[in-house]
Formats: sequence, structure tokens, C-alpha cells
Amino acid sequence: MFGKVSNYVSSMWDSVVTAPTNTDYNIVTTPTARTSSPSTSDKGFVLSLVLFQAVCLLIFGLKFDMPSPESLDPTDASASTLSSYPMYMDIHVMIFVGFGFLMTFLRKYSLSAVSLNFLLGVLALEWGVIMVPMAHQLLGNHYSTAVLNIPTLINGDFAAGAVLISFGAVLGKTTPTQLVWMTFLEVVFYALNEYIVYVSMKVTDAGGSMVIHTFGAIFGLAVAIVLGVPSPREQEENTSRYHSDVFAMIGTLFLWMYWPSFNSAMVVEDGFQKERAVITTVLSIAASCASAFVASKLLSHSKKFDMVHIQNATLAGGVAMGTSCNLAISPAASITVGLVVGIASVVGYCFVTPRLEQMLRLSDTCGILNLHAMPGIVGGFAGALVTFSASDDYYGDSLTSVYAARVDRSATKQGWYQLFAIVSSAGISAISGIVVGLFLKSRLFHQQKLKYDDEEYFHVPVADCEV
Amino acid sequence: MFGKVSNYVSSMWDSVVTAPTNTDYNIVTTPTARTSSPSTSDKGFVLSLVLFQAVCLLIFGLKFDMPSPESLDPTDASASTLSSYPMYMDIHVMIFVGFGFLMTFLRKYSLSAVSLNFLLGVLALEWGVIMVPMAHQLLGNHYSTAVLNIPTLINGDFAAGAVLISFGAVLGKTTPTQLVWMTFLEVVFYALNEYIVYVSMKVTDAGGSMVIHTFGAIFGLAVAIVLGVPSPREQEENTSRYHSDVFAMIGTLFLWMYWPSFNSAMVVEDGFQKERAVITTVLSIAASCASAFVASKLLSHSKKFDMVHIQNATLAGGVAMGTSCNLAISPAASITVGLVVGIASVVGYCFVTPRLEQMLRLSDTCGILNLHAMPGIVGGFAGALVTFSASDDYYGDSLTSVYAARVDRSATKQGWYQLFAIVSSAGISAISGIVVGLFLKSRLFHQQKLKYDDEEYFHVPVADCEV
Amino acid sequence: MFGKVSNYVSSMWDSVVTAPTNTDYNIVTTPTARTSSPSTSDKGFVLSLVLFQAVCLLIFGLKFDMPSPESLDPTDASASTLSSYPMYMDIHVMIFVGFGFLMTFLRKYSLSAVSLNFLLGVLALEWGVIMVPMAHQLLGNHYSTAVLNIPTLINGDFAAGAVLISFGAVLGKTTPTQLVWMTFLEVVFYALNEYIVYVSMKVTDAGGSMVIHTFGAIFGLAVAIVLGVPSPREQEENTSRYHSDVFAMIGTLFLWMYWPSFNSAMVVEDGFQKERAVITTVLSIAASCASAFVASKLLSHSKKFDMVHIQNATLAGGVAMGTSCNLAISPAASITVGLVVGIASVVGYCFVTPRLEQMLRLSDTCGILNLHAMPGIVGGFAGALVTFSASDDYYGDSLTSVYAARVDRSATKQGWYQLFAIVSSAGISAISGIVVGLFLKSRLFHQQKLKYDDEEYFHVPVADCEV
Repeated sequence: MFGKVSNYVSSMWDSVVTAPTNTDYNIVTTPTARTSSPSTSDKGFVLSLVLFQAVCLLIFGLKFDMPSPESLDPTDASASTLSSYPMYMDIHVMIFVGFGFLMTFLRKYSLSAVSLNFLLGVLALEWGVIMVPMAHQLLGNHYSTAVLNIPTLINGDFAAGAVLISFGAVLGKTTPTQLVWMTFLEVVFYALNEYIVYVSMKVTDAGGSMVIHTFGAIFGLAVAIVLGVPSPREQEENTSRYHSDVFAMIGTLFLWMYWPSFNSAMVVEDGFQKERAVITTVLSIAASCASAFVASKLLSHSKKFDMVHIQNATLAGGVAMGTSCNLAISPAASITVGLVVGIASVVGYCFVTPRLEQMLRLSDTCGILNLHAMPGIVGGFAGALVTFSASDDYYGDSLTSVYAARVDRSATKQGWYQLFAIVSSAGISAISGIVVGLFLKSRLFHQQKLKYDDEEYFHVPVADCEV
Repeated sequence: MFGKVSNYVSSMWDSVVTAPTNTDYNIVTTPTARTSSPSTSDKGFVLSLVLFQAVCLLIFGLKFDMPSPESLDPTDASASTLSSYPMYMDIHVMIFVGFGFLMTFLRKYSLSAVSLNFLLGVLALEWGVIMVPMAHQLLGNHYSTAVLNIPTLINGDFAAGAVLISFGAVLGKTTPTQLVWMTFLEVVFYALNEYIVYVSMKVTDAGGSMVIHTFGAIFGLAVAIVLGVPSPREQEENTSRYHSDVFAMIGTLFLWMYWPSFNSAMVVEDGFQKERAVITTVLSIAASCASAFVASKLLSHSKKFDMVHIQNATLAGGVAMGTSCNLAISPAASITVGLVVGIASVVGYCFVTPRLEQMLRLSDTCGILNLHAMPGIVGGFAGALVTFSASDDYYGDSLTSVYAARVDRSATKQGWYQLFAIVSSAGISAISGIVVGLFLKSRLFHQQKLKYDDEEYFHVPVADCEV
Repeated sequence: MFGKVSNYVSSMWDSVVTAPTNTDYNIVTTPTARTSSPSTSDKGFVLSLVLFQAVCLLIFGLKFDMPSPESLDPTDASASTLSSYPMYMDIHVMIFVGFGFLMTFLRKYSLSAVSLNFLLGVLALEWGVIMVPMAHQLLGNHYSTAVLNIPTLINGDFAAGAVLISFGAVLGKTTPTQLVWMTFLEVVFYALNEYIVYVSMKVTDAGGSMVIHTFGAIFGLAVAIVLGVPSPREQEENTSRYHSDVFAMIGTLFLWMYWPSFNSAMVVEDGFQKERAVITTVLSIAASCASAFVASKLLSHSKKFDMVHIQNATLAGGVAMGTSCNLAISPAASITVGLVVGIASVVGYCFVTPRLEQMLRLSDTCGILNLHAMPGIVGGFAGALVTFSASDDYYGDSLTSVYAARVDRSATKQGWYQLFAIVSSAGISAISGIVVGLFLKSRLFHQQKLKYDDEEYFHVPVADCEV
């Protein structure tokens, strides 16, 4: 077997280098192609993933340690970070079941969606656990062995969140190999922006409206623009069927329910702040569910509820509360934000996405523009607005635990920094997304032949009519 | 677009007032109706939901505040209620995934079931977060700004539980507009009864056998009686298909697993009580699962397991332990209660529900009579029985934390109050259910034309045979 | 109705004693059989389950008590074990949704898989809650009333884990009655081995690589060998369909996500140890996901991803970390273990299982050999290796909380005991599995006629092509 593997590896390398690009419109899914499906393409997957794991293993070996009485001061009562564990598990469910099932809505791509989401989530988590602390060390010029703890793992899941948002834009149009490389590269830029926003700018963004949602969405949209729009014939498979729509609701509901954990997991527990982050998120995401139903009924084709809106726009209120969840935002304000972005998200699905597809040649499979980019930017602005306007008295002693920089920074100055963080997140993600998109479109990679179809990379069970 | 919306709103109001009722049996689902489906009906939905959100927003703005050093005494160590958060999330999963997927069992109504459960859960949660504290303030004659915390949110989810139980009885037979109004009105009566039971009567009912299950079920059954029975032809769609039965098991299992959190979330943590509530619920709901399998094999058609029983009767032990979970109930007694209600619930599905449909013209889509009404009332009686019989010594110092009124009330007197609470819950729900049913059947509302069918209100993907 | 029941019970007993065994290959699923399906067979189910519950009820009544100020010292601050509750709920989800949905992959056996998993999980949980403490009392010669608490319930779920692993090997080939008896008997031997490993040998195995996974898998494989291989014609139904593969991913993902809770739930919280158990498990199970994707692409038929591998081999890293999760194992070592077992598990699915089916007549429906037996044994060896090699300094003060016996035992001696525990787990499970298999194959039991098909024991909804 090992001989076979080594031959395989060397032939893969050739194929990685010489693989022809093929994005023409005249690639037709013939019945013959579907039954034979030789799949000699994409041999680079194995090599890419082996390299990925080797790099991770090497860095984990050199730079990371477990919590132990040796690695940590045993007299430190706060050594254990297990109090965050239940919220960490909720976020884990959002990443793997939430995003994974949300993307199963495509009629012939459910297996790929949930499986590739699983793989990319794992890779981004491993690489995020490495890159986020490494970015802080490299950019902060202090080097040491990093001791893993629950917050490190949560940061890994957050990085995975950004990657899986981007995955939503290119779902069904990219090969596993391309996705592995996208994950690898995106997490690097994610960690860079995360450092700039949190450390350089000292900006607060507990639930990642800017750092996770805006970044992940604009990165994914930039990649999608570069990769281009599938042919009208290919687009015919870009629809759901009855049970794939039900499966997608599993994803929607777990995302919706656990969003308060996502936004509040990294918020300091000072008696008020973390609980506030939970409550504002519950209210906002509830409001966006209600307003998305209204907007769907009002704006969708023939005035019926559209599952695309119910699966996605209902979540916009959670995204939009990512920055301000633990700030001085009232219940009524939280609900207002949720109501507005729920409607805006449906408007996006009905009117904006179809037009951008024509105008910008932007094909956004899951509509991340409407679920992450727009509400993420709204969330960033909401956070800045609260920062400009809220009285310091509201926070009492916890002012500097909310805003680390407010020790020597005025509210107005902090507000401007909050706005700069939107610019940083949008700018770094747009530029890096275009660069990564061009890399993925290059001759180094095969391009997906059968769009929105499991057949090319997955064994698909024989169709069966008895259900 | 806004002009369009304002025209729409004014035409909706006309339609709300003049919409003709139509409950005749001769509404036939013709192929033409299914493909064209103009859906000019039910324009009132948008207006109703806008009103609902406006009322919520107004009251949140006027009466509710976030926890902060300003709103709460910062020296109060117990300010944060985050210790209830993991149980709150479990309850959240029960409400949205548990109830939502349990109801997907209908072959052509899965999209509606999970989506409308989502919407009604959100509305009931918002309105419950408002109405439960407001009822305490209005009926208790003390007015102040209410500070939101995790227990307030749990009470919102409990109100949603009652509403979604009621939804089970009318599933597939009511329009979204009717359901919005049912939610709005039911939560008002729910909050009234909740206040009477907990505050006026000082009755203990931690997991809501009476307040949630008995109330929600009898309310729903009363509405269903008033709305009447669909025609035999319409009833043909009131069945499952293979994959809808598997989807429903997602709901069943999450309800089953997290029921201990439902029953114990609001129980005081005094070292014994909350843990007891968990253990009794685990034992009882395990026993009801075992006995439901026995009864299903014994009593169902041709002696095979029936998924209706496995999806529902297995949960009866959780409902029945709602009142006595934290009381002086032994492991063996918990199991006995579970075994009895598991069997009784299957008996209900096999023999009671079909006869009530003929005798009372009661069409109970999910069989909430057998899953919530009967076990809820059994649970109320079990709680009263334990209250009459248990020695005060058992509770030690925590007697008055279990029964607030036992400061100056004998065990026997408390037992009678426990029984009165069943009467209050059943009585208020029956009367208000009939009133709300008559309102929903009035000419103000369109009636659902296509029973048990998504088509009337949802975009349904084109059927696809390859699975 | 009661007369009917008593007649039924007496006729059942006859049928239990006289039922003919039928394992011939010429049992053919004729269309007639499927439509009529009289199902007079297997009347023993009701009697068996009634006996099971009666025994449980009796022992709970005689020997078990609830936590209360009466049963426990009220001055004991550590009375409540509620801090384990969130992890307990995660394990609950693994047992009922994780295993339950993982097994829905069969095209015509999804209803049976999730339902029987539910029933067996409940029975094993009840019986495990009894047997594990009873084994400690009987074998330890100290008798007293046992007070239930959360760790007791977790031990019940662990026993259920072992039983459901065994269930995986015989899935689709055994009647409900056989499974009830298998559960009853397996938990007895499970508790025996659990006592020997943890108490007699004083071996550490926090996540049960040996006690749960090795034991459950080898027990199940032994039963499966005795029961034999279905005919080639019957094997035709031993495949998935599109949506059953998606359902199975629900199980995979919940198992994958909550595995850190499974491994760390019973680990002592001393500031380092429990958190370490979480982190090592996250890293190892992430690595096995990545390497399983690589191996699947490399080794599977026509070089496409195979859902069998993605559903199962991705979890091997969690199994393999069961013993060493809280020991002195570095991040890089955890990842290495995960990478190795992920690949080895896919190799098992591709090459080992098909050959064992021919050579040993071992039909292993879910491939528990590759998901539980192999990684479990690897995990046991990894634990022994770490025990031999790690410096005592690493553990500091918590050395004896990790290894109870290290008070007076050298590291080397402890290492040998760790190895003996593999032998004990494998030996007891192999012998008891063969004995139980012979019992289940005896004339006392009917054998399943329709292999991998719900029809024999479940009402199956009429097939419906519109999806």
C-alpha cells in the first residue's frame, strides 16, 4: 500500500502544478459524465491536506502546551477557564450543525455541504487555534509557549465561523482542494485583522459583527466575484427540494438558539455585562425572526413565505448585535435593530442579490451578503453609535472592562476607533479575498465541473423513490 | 416600494374586516388551485404582526431595562443569574427544535410546521417576557421598571411552551394570521393563570404540569373543538411519510433529553432540590419511554410499533413530573408515575382521540390530549398527593423554599391549594380557549383552505423523485 | 382490555419458550409478506420489557434514594453535583441523538434504528444506574442505600454507550426482544468489568477507551459472529439512500462536537485536569476528522469521499483519547493519535471489515470494529504509554487524583495495570458476548426475518414520491 501512496503523492504534485483551468460555460453535465465520473481531477486534495496537517502538527509541537501545574502558576485560582465551557459547546454546535445544516438546502449538494462544512470547520479551528495567538505574539513582539485553554478554543471556532461564512458564497462552485487553501489563507488574514481591531485599535466587538461577520462575508464575496457566475444551465441545480429545506431548518434553528452564546462567550463576567450580552442578543434575534416573516410575506414572489428568507433573514438580528451586545443598549433599541435588519435582509434576498449577480457577476449561493455582510456592518455602526452616545455612568466600575482603551480615551475617540474597525475589517477582507480568489482561479487548481452537485467528489447512493 | 407597501397596508385592513369565513367541506384541492395559488387571502398577516411588534416595542421601551450597575445594586453578589444559562439554552432547544421538529411529521406540512413553530415561539417568547412580569405588577399593584434577567427569559420560553402545545391541536388547520392572534391572546390568559397559581395560591409547580401543560393543552383543545373537524377528504393528508417521521424524532429526542432542564430550571439551588428535580425527571421520562414501547406493541394496529406513540407517548413522564419533580418523591415513585402515564398516553392515542373526534368533533392533530392534558393533570394530582403525604422532616431547612406558603400553612391546606391550581389552570384555559376559538372562527379571519398542506402559505420546491 | 392483556401474557410465555429459530438463508422478502406481515412473532417483547421494568422498579424501591437533607449530611457543601450537569446533558445528546441518528443511515431501517436506539438507551441507562453502584456494593462487600446524583446518571449513560456500540454491530439483524435481553445481560458484564478496572486494578480510563468502547465493541462483534452473516440477497438492503446519509450526519456531528464532554465529564476539576481532558479531545478528534477525509479520498472506490468514512472514521480520535485525555499528553501527541486512528479507521472500513465478513463470518453493520474496537484499544495503549513515560512532576499535587493508586505504586507498575485493563475489557466482553450471542440465537428467541427493514416491527408510512 505504501508504494501506491508514494506514487500517488508524486503524481499529485504534477497534477497540482499542471492542472488546466476550466471555467468555460460549455461544460455540460452529460449523463455519461455522471455515471462514469473518473475523477482523476483534484489529486491535489490529499497533498494539500497532508501539508496542512503537517504544518499544524509542527507548530503545535513547537509552540503549544497543555494547562498543567508545570505550565501555569498552580496558585492561580483562575487557572481553569471551564466556566466558558457550556457556551463553547453551544458555539461548536453553531459551527458544525448550524452552518453545516444551513447549507444542506441545495437539492443535490446536501452531502457535500454538511461534509465540507465539517472538514473546513475542523481545519479552520486547528489553524485558528494556532494563528490567533501566533498573530498576537508575532505582531506584539513577545514570544513564548502558548498554553491552550477554553478561550483559545473559542477563538478557533470564531475563525472557523469566518471561514464558513465565506464558504457560503462559493458553495457548490469550488473543489475541496480550493476550499482547503481558501481556509488556510483566510485564517491568516483573519488573525491579522483580529489583532489590528482588538489590540492595535483596542476596539470592542464581542460577538464579531466586524471581525467575524463583516470580514468573513466580504472575503467570501470577493472570492466569489473573482470566480465568476455559473452558466444558466448550471444554475438550474441551485435550488432546494422539500426535505433539503427541512434539513436546512436544523441549521437555522441551532444558529438562532445558540446565538446568545456566540455573542457573549468572550464577554467578561462582572455581574452585568455577560448577562446583558445574552439578553440583547435574544431580543434582537427574536425581533429579526418576526420582521423577516413579515417581509417575506410582503415581498416574496406571489406573497407566500419563502424558505430562503426563513432560513437566513431570521438570524440577521444576532449578527447585528455582535458589537453592541454588551454595551449600553436598551431592550427597545435591541429589538429595533433586529426588526430593521430582518426586513433589510429579506429586501437583500429579493432585490439586491439578483441584481448584483447581473451587475457585478457576483454569484452568492447562500446570500451571505444579506445574512452577514449587511447586518455585520449595521452591527459595527450600531456599536459605534452606542459608544458615541452612552453615558459613562451606565457602566460604573466596568467601563474599562467593556472598553479597555477608555482608561485614557474619550468616548468620542473610542467611537471613531469603532468606525475604523469596520473599515479595517472590510478593507483587509476585500483585498485578501480578491488575492485569494485569483489564486484559486489560477492554473494551479482544477475548477469544479459539476456545479451544485455531489457527484464529482462524493459517492452518491443510488436514487430511491420510496419515501 | 414604500408606496406599494402603504397601498398594501390599507387594502389589508379592508380584507381583515371583510374577509369571508369558509369552513365548508366542499373546498377541494384541485390541481389548478395548487399550481396557480393566487393567495390573495390572509393579507391581515402583515398588519397583525406589525401591530404585535409595535405593541412589544412600545412596552419594552416604557417598562423594561437591562441589568447594569445603574439598574441594580452593584453590591448585590447575586445580581447575575447566569448560572441558569445552560438550562435556559436547553429549554430554548426544546421550544424551537423540540416542538418544531416534533410537528414536522405531516407529509406535506413539514415546512409550515417548523417555520410557524419558529414564528409563534418567538412571538410568545417576546410577549411572555412582557406579560408575565406585567401580570405580577398589574395584579400585585406594584409598578416599576422591570429589569430583564435570565429567569425572565425562561418565563418567556415557558409561555412559548404553552402556546406551542396549543398549536399542536390546530396544526395544519389554521392560518398564520389566526395563529398570531391565538398567541397574542393565549399568553395574556397564561400570565393571568400563572399569577393566580404561583402568587395568589402560592402553589408549587416547578416544571409546569398545571401552568404550562394542562393550561396549554386544554386551551388548544378548546380552540380545536370550536374550529371543528376537517372533512374526511382533507383528513387524508393528516398522515406522515417516511422521512417526515424521521424528522419528527429529532424533536422527540431533544424534548426527551432536555426535559430535566425544563423541570428544574426554576427550582432553587439549595444543595438538594434542583438535583432532585433533575433525577426524578430523568427516571420518570425514561420509564414512560419504556412503557410506551410496551403499550404501542400491545395496543397498536397489527401489533407493530407505531411512530406516533414513539414520538409522543415516550415524553409523558416528563410532563407528569412537572409538579412533583422537586418534592419528596422517591426514585421508585418517579418511575411508577412515568410507567403509568406512558401506557395511558398510548391508550389515549389508540382509543380516546379517535372517539373524541367523532363524539366531540375534536380534531387534535398532534394528540396533545394524550401528551400534555392527561399527563399534566396526572402530574398536578401527583404533586398534590406528595404534598398531602410527605413529612416536613424530609425537606429540612428547605421546606419554605419548596413551598413558600408553608410558613403559615399546614401540609393538608397546601395540598388542597395544589388541587385548586389544577382547577384554575383547566378552567381558565377552557373558557379562554373557547372564546379565542370563536374569535378565530369569526368573519374577521380567513380560514385555512388547504388543510395539512404547505402550498397555501409557503413556496414549496418542485417535487423531485431522486432521493 | 385487561382480560385481553392477561390472555396475551400467557400466550406470550408459550411463544417465548417454543418459538422456532430460523436463520436459514432462504427466507425471502416476498411482496406478500410485506403487505400482510401478520407479526405474530416476537410476542415475548412485551413480557420481556415488563419483567425488565419490574426488576428495575423493585431495586429502585429497595436500594435507591433521592438526595435530601435526610439522606445526605446537610453540612456537606459538596452535596450537589450539579456542576456536572451541562456535560451530562451533552452526553445525553450523544447517546440518544448521536448514536440514534448515526444509525439511521440504512435506507429502510431509519425508523427502527432511531427508535430502538432510544429504547435500548433508556433501558441501559436505567439498568446501568442500578448495576454500576450495585456492582461496587456487591463486589466491594459494603451494602447501603445508594443516593442518586448526577455522576450516577452519567454512569448510566456510559453503560448505555457500551450497549449502543454493541447495537451497531447487529443493527438490522436482531429483533427488539433479542435487543432487550442483550441490553439486560451486557450491562451486568459491563458493570463487572467496570468494577474490576476502576476499583480492583485502580486504572484510569476517564473517557472509557477500554471500559466503554473496547468493551462495547468486542461484545457486539462477538454477538455478531455468533449470529452469523445475512444472505447476499438480504445484504442488498444494507445500504444507504441520499437522505438517510444526511440524517446520519446529525448523529456524527453531535457525537463529534460533544465528545470532549464525554471524555471529561468524570474527570476531577482541580484547575488543570478537566480542562486538559477537553482540549486533548478537541485536538485529537479534529485531527481524526482531517485524516479521515484524506484517507477516504485516497482509499475509497473511485477516489471519491465515502459517506461511511465521513460518518464514522472522523470520530475515531475521540475514542482513542478516552484513556489519556487527562494524562500528561501534549497537544502535538493528541493530534498525532487522532491523525493515526482516523486513517486506520478508514483502512478498516475499506479493507478489514469486508475480509472479516468472509473469513470470520462477521457481519458488522456499522463497522464498530473500526470506530470503537480499534481506536479503543489504541486509546488503552496510548494511556499505558503515557503512564510509563510521563514524569510525576508534570502532575504536581494532582498526581493521586489522576491515578488513585500512585500513592503506593510506581509509574511502571501503574503502566502494567493500564495494560491489564485492556486485557480485562477485551476478555470479559469477548467471552460474555459469545455467551449472550448463543443465548440470543437459541430457540428461546425468534430471529429477525426481514433484515435491515422496518416492516417487520414498525408501521411504515405508505411510500410517497413527491419530495
